[in-house]
Amino acid sequence: MKLTVLGLDGVGEVRGGDDLAAHLLPLVGLSDGDVVCVTSKVVSKAEGHVLTGDRADAIVRETRRLVARRGPLSIVVNRLGLTLAAAGVDASNVEPGQVLLLPEDPDASARALRSAVRERTGVNVGVVVTDTAGRAWREGQTDIAIGAAGVRVVDDHTGRLDPYGNTLAVTAPAVADELAAAAELAAGKLGRRPFVVVRGRSDLVLPPDDDGPGAAALLRPEGADLFGLGSREAVVAALRGGSEERRVFGSPAPAAELAVVLDVLTGDGAVVTVGPDRIEVASQDPKAFWAAEVAAYAHGWEVVEDGEARIRLRAVAP
Amino acid sequence: MKLTVLGLDGVGEVRGGDDLAAHLLPLVGLSDGDVVCVTSKVVSKAEGHVLTGDRADAIVRETRRLVARRGPLSIVVNRLGLTLAAAGVDASNVEPGQVLLLPEDPDASARALRSAVRERTGVNVGVVVTDTAGRAWREGQTDIAIGAAGVRVVDDHTGRLDPYGNTLAVTAPAVADELAAAAELAAGKLGRRPFVVVRGRSDLVLPPDDDGPGAAALLRPEGADLFGLGSREAVVAALRGGSEERRVFGSPAPAAELAVVLDVLTGDGAVVTVGPDRIEVASQDPKAFWAAEVAAYAHGWEVVEDGEARIRLRAVAP
Repeated sequence: MKLTVLGLDGVGEVRGGDDLAAHLLPLVGLSDGDVVCVTSKVVSKAEGHVLTGDRADAIVRETRRLVARRGPLSIVVNRLGLTLAAAGVDASNVEPGQVLLLPEDPDASARALRSAVRERTGVNVGVVVTDTAGRAWREGQTDIAIGAAGVRVVDDHTGRLDPYGNTLAVTAPAVADELAAAAELAAGKLGRRPFVVVRGRSDLVLPPDDDGPGAAALLRPEGADLFGLGSREAVVAALRGGSEERRVFGSPAPAAELAVVLDVLTGDGAVVTVGPDRIEVASQDPKAFWAAEVAAYAHGWEVVEDGEARIRLRAVAP
Repeated sequence: MKLTVLGLDGVGEVRGGDDLAAHLLPLVGLSDGDVVCVTSKVVSKAEGHVLTGDRADAIVRETRRLVARRGPLSIVVNRLGLTLAAAGVDASNVEPGQVLLLPEDPDASARALRSAVRERTGVNVGVVVTDTAGRAWREGQTDIAIGAAGVRVVDDHTGRLDPYGNTLAVTAPAVADELAAAAELAAGKLGRRPFVVVRGRSDLVLPPDDDGPGAAALLRPEGADLFGLGSREAVVAALRGGSEERRVFGSPAPAAELAVVLDVLTGDGAVVTVGPDRIEVASQDPKAFWAAEVAAYAHGWEVVEDGEARIRLRAVAP
């Protein structure tokens, strides 16, 4: 099997309001089954997500919640649900004093480019919008798919058999991320080749009327990952409550805030918020259960019923 | 820029004691600057790292420490320092009843293949040994580099300028992992194409007499990552001590065990073990400091000196 990865030279400066397909199409003759990878950077530029102002302010605006912090490094879940350093706010390859936000809806951006290519050339391509992300346990960054249209994002082998007859139980290559990584190798980091075409895996490209699930399908839902908080942040959240100002047995935390901590501790959908001042937790894991009780007290809540595999919690009246 | 990624068809069954270069060389005419990617699976088979026996036992043998567990899923740091589900033990693409361990030293395996190719053909290639890994916050898996020889593993742009004159501060693409990901797209998961050649980034291949740092350079050192324990595991470790059997204010934990928890809480090399029953912690972060004190008590230790930015801890005599 042969893949060709073409980093396209000759792209002009992309400006707010530009038509991305008009930048792309003169550079390459596309074929059915090609995957066009485009950096989020030029998508954001074309869509005008450029801010004049302070990077730190932009990061706060783009952040849904903090995951972990050490020194100047903040890892957050951003508005799009992506876990990224600096919320994905970018100050490279833009005019000094400006910052670039991620596209408003990268899957929609991918769909728009796919549809423009099809309208103007009749060719059925897949589109991946790429961004650069660090990893929890490895040095350096790789490019990942933050938007996708017409591309299978996970090539699920679950239940298939290998040549020995063993079931391939948990093998589900995140092919959209691998396409993004391959594209980065042909794009380079200096911003000169924002478009890369990957040719040779047309089996990953969906029919023209099917845009597929998009790259949003690659995000683990909140609470379904085991690393929703950094190791230190999880302990601090459990022991001290979510807010800097709150102290043990201080004013009760909002139910939603405590629920995030409890979810980390008990997992698997064990936390049911039943009201603004009442939460139920069901778990089979006594260790996590015990930690959840401590967290409840640290957040200004109390245990009102303590069953074998369930506790009911109530906010302590201030 | 054009990359070609060749997934090589026609590889025969690889058996213990086989010469990998003898499998590879009849399949392709290699050129200087090519990168040969090979799955850890066939490297392990050739090196005889096949065990007849139980997968669960093999996982325990290969595990250095647990990172996180939920249901049947265990994420651990394995013998090689890789954070992987099931410690990298593999029961697919092997005879039923057998399990495959990762190579003893994947960087050494890469060097051996690189040197065999050079001896027999005179061609200077880079070699990447690949394996499949999940990600903390994303669905699906991608292939990563667990061994490398003669390949730059991180393409460090730190300090370079973008075309606008901004410094590219933290951009360091993990190119060896991107090569592995690109290779997976041309290899497929059914084990038929364990060798993939990536052609077109000869700038990443080092001179023949330089094998480079290997893929071990892609591992964050213990304590330098923010996700050294799962969110729940970090809290449980802090509150209950490391061992299932240990209870709050029970017999003191060994210094090394407490030091791991304290390192997670305080980070940045703040923990100094000064003896089997004495530890010092220096930190500028009062929140983490407070949590570290709780962890110390939970592990059967006590605070003997509590300074502004330093505490001294001592194991409580049983």
